[in-house]
Amino acid sequence: MNRIITLTSDFGLQDGFVGTMKGAILGINPQATIVDITHEIAPQNVEQGAFLFAASATYFPANTIHVVVVDPGVGTARRPIALQLGETIFVAPDNGVLSLAVTNYESQRDASQLRLTNSQTRAVHLTKPAYWLPRVSHTFHGRDIFAPVAAHLSLGTPVDALGEPIADWIRLAPAAPVRRADGALIAQVRHIDRFGNIVINVVEEQIAGWDPDLIVLVSSSGYLEVAAREANAAQILGVRIGDQIVVVP
Amino acid sequence: MNRIITLTSDFGLQDGFVGTMKGAILGINPQATIVDITHEIAPQNVEQGAFLFAASATYFPANTIHVVVVDPGVGTARRPIALQLGETIFVAPDNGVLSLAVTNYESQRDASQLRLTNSQTRAVHLTKPAYWLPRVSHTFHGRDIFAPVAAHLSLGTPVDALGEPIADWIRLAPAAPVRRADGALIAQVRHIDRFGNIVINVVEEQIAGWDPDLIVLVSSSGYLEVAAREANAAQILGVRIGDQIVVVP
Amino acid sequence: MNRIITLTSDFGLQDGFVGTMKGAILGINPQATIVDITHEIAPQNVEQGAFLFAASATYFPANTIHVVVVDPGVGTARRPIALQLGETIFVAPDNGVLSLAVTNYESQRDASQLRLTNSQTRAVHLTKPAYWLPRVSHTFHGRDIFAPVAAHLSLGTPVDALGEPIADWIRLAPAAPVRRADGALIAQVRHIDRFGNIVINVVEEQIAGWDPDLIVLVSSSGYLEVAAREANAAQILGVRIGDQIVVVP
Repeated sequence: MNRIITLTSDFGLQDGFVGTMKGAILGINPQATIVDITHEIAPQNVEQGAFLFAASATYFPANTIHVVVVDPGVGTARRPIALQLGETIFVAPDNGVLSLAVTNYESQRDASQLRLTNSQTRAVHLTKPAYWLPRVSHTFHGRDIFAPVAAHLSLGTPVDALGEPIADWIRLAPAAPVRRADGALIAQVRHIDRFGNIVINVVEEQIAGWDPDLIVLVSSSGYLEVAAREANAAQILGVRIGDQIVVVP
Repeated sequence: MNRIITLTSDFGLQDGFVGTMKGAILGINPQATIVDITHEIAPQNVEQGAFLFAASATYFPANTIHVVVVDPGVGTARRPIALQLGETIFVAPDNGVLSLAVTNYESQRDASQLRLTNSQTRAVHLTKPAYWLPRVSHTFHGRDIFAPVAAHLSLGTPVDALGEPIADWIRLAPAAPVRRADGALIAQVRHIDRFGNIVINVVEEQIAGWDPDLIVLVSSSGYLEVAAREANAAQILGVRIGDQIVVVP
Repeated sequence: MNRIITLTSDFGLQDGFVGTMKGAILGINPQATIVDITHEIAPQNVEQGAFLFAASATYFPANTIHVVVVDPGVGTARRPIALQLGETIFVAPDNGVLSLAVTNYESQRDASQLRLTNSQTRAVHLTKPAYWLPRVSHTFHGRDIFAPVAAHLSLGTPVDALGEPIADWIRLAPAAPVRRADGALIAQVRHIDRFGNIVINVVEEQIAGWDPDLIVLVSSSGYLEVAAREANAAQILGVRIGDQIVVVP
């Protein structure tokens, strides 16, 4: 058994935080297979983290252990949690960063008519220091709690052993576009990628039959994307993450 | 058999594209060994991608599977291809991004008097959706075609199975320096590295016996490099990729 | 036996240098497990490299092979070296970049009352080209010397075989804070992280009982850290790496 562990965070790559997390995993399970999704989530931006993580997670094998550390509440009372959905396990702070991935996961299950039974779905508050590093800092739970927990999971520790069952973990509803009286959609910029493509919180069905002026594609993440051929749409429009965009028929 | 898969792209690391490609590979072959060459090719800069990929690829084991995705034509009629040279396999869009690596590969073969026979050289147009993800987007063939094809290759699928044989894949001749009437070389900037060293399209033999004013080294890639000791040559000279530099004896 | 090889450097990720080093390792040991600590050390900043490497290295398994390439002297007479401390092996240029990690390593050994015996501590000047790539450039010993040496070590080559024993490898004393007549500490900025937290060269005991105006935390690296809640302390204070900060009781 060698389950893949993925890492997603807002740690960036310049400080060694990510290398340190990998050390903390490999110090417990030297055989672990670790894969980076991205570490360039904007610092403490839980919504962006939820979006980019969800867009990637779905492609990994079902038995993957996903660690997501975008954690503005580190050092406060926010809970560290683990969720198990079928074979997949998610480890993260309880701040909603898993919401979109869990929704995607459930949709796939629905689509395949394999609805999760209760015995397949577990959420625990990580409360057992036996599965953490011996000393836990106030500022780096990625290293001290989340990485060691993932390492123990990869060695076969069941989710149940890691803490107390909970039912009230935080699940954010992604901001939905608002439909204006004239039918236009007031959408929100979810992400701007390296190429300047603007991903907005609208899915294809919501503008079925429209013929927008700008190039609007279904992006590879399934959301609509405002693009400009061989140009940077974000620069042309001057938008930033979180800005509103009005899509008119 | 566990052949290494390398990834080179212009995807950057901030968007999760690279993590997603790795998911697409591992979803098909959970045992795959994946190594990043670089993902910071300037967006859609095929020439720079060809240069940086070629400088790295030669160091990997002969049976490596190299995936190179610098793909300004994604979503158009440009062909996705795979090339097999001896034991090495290359997977990329058919836009010339493999040219320099293939030339290097052939030179090494020549040097070792192990010329490739026809049976060792294959090029195919990737036309078999059975080896792709079920849904192929218009904008992310790295995830939907190239990564799954590499995963299937790493599991032992032969190149021939992936599509139709072709002979006319695009091979770009790298821009050569021009010799002026006075003997000077009008060279082109191929790459500027993190340290500000300027790599130009000139090899040592072309300036044999010269004594240039600036520090000109044979760079680690084999091309000449304009450097400044403990300083940033690119900033001092104010040059950018693609600029011309005149090298005088 | 599959010892982990870690890589730390100032190469950045945009030039393919890191991918090339991995190729050089895998070309010798295709089974090697390679983990990045960070490649975003400020170019040629040995002190910052020593600090960030030491903060990560301690979390890896004891039998790890650590390669650290921050190498302003590449191409000069500075020596390439390997150190073995107990089971851990360090490979680097002889410029002090290992100092802090070695000190940490020795403290842990002291703490666990397992002092190193002479037979467990070895330092060698890497002088045997048989363990390097066939051609050694003047500018990229990471690829041509350090990576191949690490690959051979991972295959079981003993440190002794790689060169001549030395005792005078360079060990930098980290800059200590200076105590003023009034008891204040003149400290130095060691690192500024992605979140704007300022790490200074002061440990907790040196300000025991003080009540500083700003938020001063014990950082996850064990040094004090000047932080601002949900804000960028480095921007607020306008400090850079190497600047002085006066900490008053």
